[in-house]
Amino acid sequence: MGGDHGPSVVIPAVARALAELPERVSFLLHGDEAVLAPEIARHPGAAGRVTIRHADKVIGMDEKPAQALRRSKGSSMWNAVEAVREGEAACAVSAGNTGALMAISKLILRMSVDLDRPALVASIPTPKGVTTFLDVGANVDCDAERLVEFAIMGEAYHRAAHGKAHPTIGLLNVGAEEMKGHDEVREAHSVLRQGGFDMDFRGFVEGDDITKGAVDVVVTDGFTGNIALKAMEGAGRFVVGELRTALKSGALATAGALLARGALMKFGERVNPPPTAPFLGLNGLVLKVHGGASARDFAQALRVAMDLSQSDFAAEIERNMRRLPAALAETSSEPSPEPGNEPAEGAD
Amino acid sequence: MGGDHGPSVVIPAVARALAELPERVSFLLHGDEAVLAPEIARHPGAAGRVTIRHADKVIGMDEKPAQALRRSKGSSMWNAVEAVREGEAACAVSAGNTGALMAISKLILRMSVDLDRPALVASIPTPKGVTTFLDVGANVDCDAERLVEFAIMGEAYHRAAHGKAHPTIGLLNVGAEEMKGHDEVREAHSVLRQGGFDMDFRGFVEGDDITKGAVDVVVTDGFTGNIALKAMEGAGRFVVGELRTALKSGALATAGALLARGALMKFGERVNPPPTAPFLGLNGLVLKVHGGASARDFAQALRVAMDLSQSDFAAEIERNMRRLPAALAETSSEPSPEPGNEPAEGAD
Repeated sequence: MGGDHGPSVVIPAVARALAELPERVSFLLHGDEAVLAPEIARHPGAAGRVTIRHADKVIGMDEKPAQALRRSKGSSMWNAVEAVREGEAACAVSAGNTGALMAISKLILRMSVDLDRPALVASIPTPKGVTTFLDVGANVDCDAERLVEFAIMGEAYHRAAHGKAHPTIGLLNVGAEEMKGHDEVREAHSVLRQGGFDMDFRGFVEGDDITKGAVDVVVTDGFTGNIALKAMEGAGRFVVGELRTALKSGALATAGALLARGALMKFGERVNPPPTAPFLGLNGLVLKVHGGASARDFAQALRVAMDLSQSDFAAEIERNMRRLPAALAETSSEPSPEPGNEPAEGAD
Repeated sequence: MGGDHGPSVVIPAVARALAELPERVSFLLHGDEAVLAPEIARHPGAAGRVTIRHADKVIGMDEKPAQALRRSKGSSMWNAVEAVREGEAACAVSAGNTGALMAISKLILRMSVDLDRPALVASIPTPKGVTTFLDVGANVDCDAERLVEFAIMGEAYHRAAHGKAHPTIGLLNVGAEEMKGHDEVREAHSVLRQGGFDMDFRGFVEGDDITKGAVDVVVTDGFTGNIALKAMEGAGRFVVGELRTALKSGALATAGALLARGALMKFGERVNPPPTAPFLGLNGLVLKVHGGASARDFAQALRVAMDLSQSDFAAEIERNMRRLPAALAETSSEPSPEPGNEPAEGAD
């Protein structure tokens, strides 16, 4: 029922997924049966693979998370997440209210790691493919331990979602040298380097490495991640907006844009980020789809849900998490490198 | 002598400035006289308005700041900054090594505010003009007091550089509500709101507001600022790179791009950030010009140097700085707003 378009996007997405995903994949549709039943009945493939679970209540897109949470029990969103806890569903997928989905997921599934909230992941397009970027807003204050947890979860997610056996990991900082940055990133760097994790850690990366695809997974705290993500989105929109203005600025430009129309449309698709964001760190899988997602986007999210569900993702996270206490203890017993009084080591 | 192109950019820039700026503006050129003298002699307007100050040493673009600092005395960069301290020059302008220029400036001019290093400012193009964004990398750990100092200095700089009488100020955060973010930004928000500064403070802004031009000056710590700046630059380069690829992807696209060539070139100019960054918080004016700047860019920096030199900038900063101790004391005596246990208040 969620997202900007509700069932008018979700139903065609399920229809696409029914055609594209293996027969063994089936769907629970949570929401208003009176709306969903006639819609889904138009898709003949749905019989036997789609079950409607009626819910009276729907969480609004603009409700505050705390307020939504109080009245959420029995809503379509609540029921979708509860089905994951009950083992009826392998993954919950929603285009609804992000804050509410996060709060409901945390309440029903509980955290599997020591975080305030699930880590929020963004997928950033690059010339090489996609960078997995986290945390982009859920955990504002992060110590070294949390940054390492993001690295462990992001690595496993990237492998499961993109099928890359050995994703590379970078830690976001203001420079590539080990002396740079604040205490938390320098400590996380030491732990990741020396902690004996099953992970290809490549050290510090900088802001522009995210869109370069310098590494597969870029790790940062939720404050920096949220701001960097929105800053990149803003920069992208600004550049595309200026391009649009330029291509309408005269007859020649307009004619040129018309000729190049096919190429410009492909360009638009290339620079748009994938619309799916997992919540990491829960006892169960929840995928958030962008509120404005199209049916094609939402169907793509259902494919990611399938890939994650059948991956070894949770076990891989657990294996590395078990190394974490020892890794933290080893690193903190060493003399930590002094930031030093070098001039301008902050800037790069 | 600095920058990627050295005198081959600086000399033509000075020649432009000689033609464009008032007659009373004159220049001290620091560097190798054997290189500079014949070059500048080709410009007839230079006589009487350009003085060459010979320096044997040049700081390399790749030298580490600490290493550069040790051997910097008597270099062209050192002499340029020293001329500001001695009152011979109103402003030092350099396209050289950023870290070295920052370290030398701090050593020679000393800080006028309570910061580790001068704040580094970026100018971000927006559909409305330019956003002044600081600190973009010099001060990695920032408490509320430092954030307020950035606001005070950024406001005065924006007015002086862009001629806007009442610039608007925003504090970068993960959401616009007062409860969001970490302690330092929430405290800085209170101080700016209640401190009685001569400033149009508009509260919190988000990452995408930087390129929207939602406010004139966006304030953040040097860690977040450096990462957000590079993330935006990276996103811009990615989008422009994909556009270039798309426009070479076939005969129609290439023909279209050829027709729209003039518009695309204007677009390129619109999205490129202005190449000048002041170091704020010093007892004296120092402007850093991007290493790859063209003669036109460098001439533009010389105009900014003139505007700053004849502005009331330093006095305005001092006036607001004098309010700061009282403002901090007032705010810290109030009960600070609790972050609360609201779900997902970190994300937005």
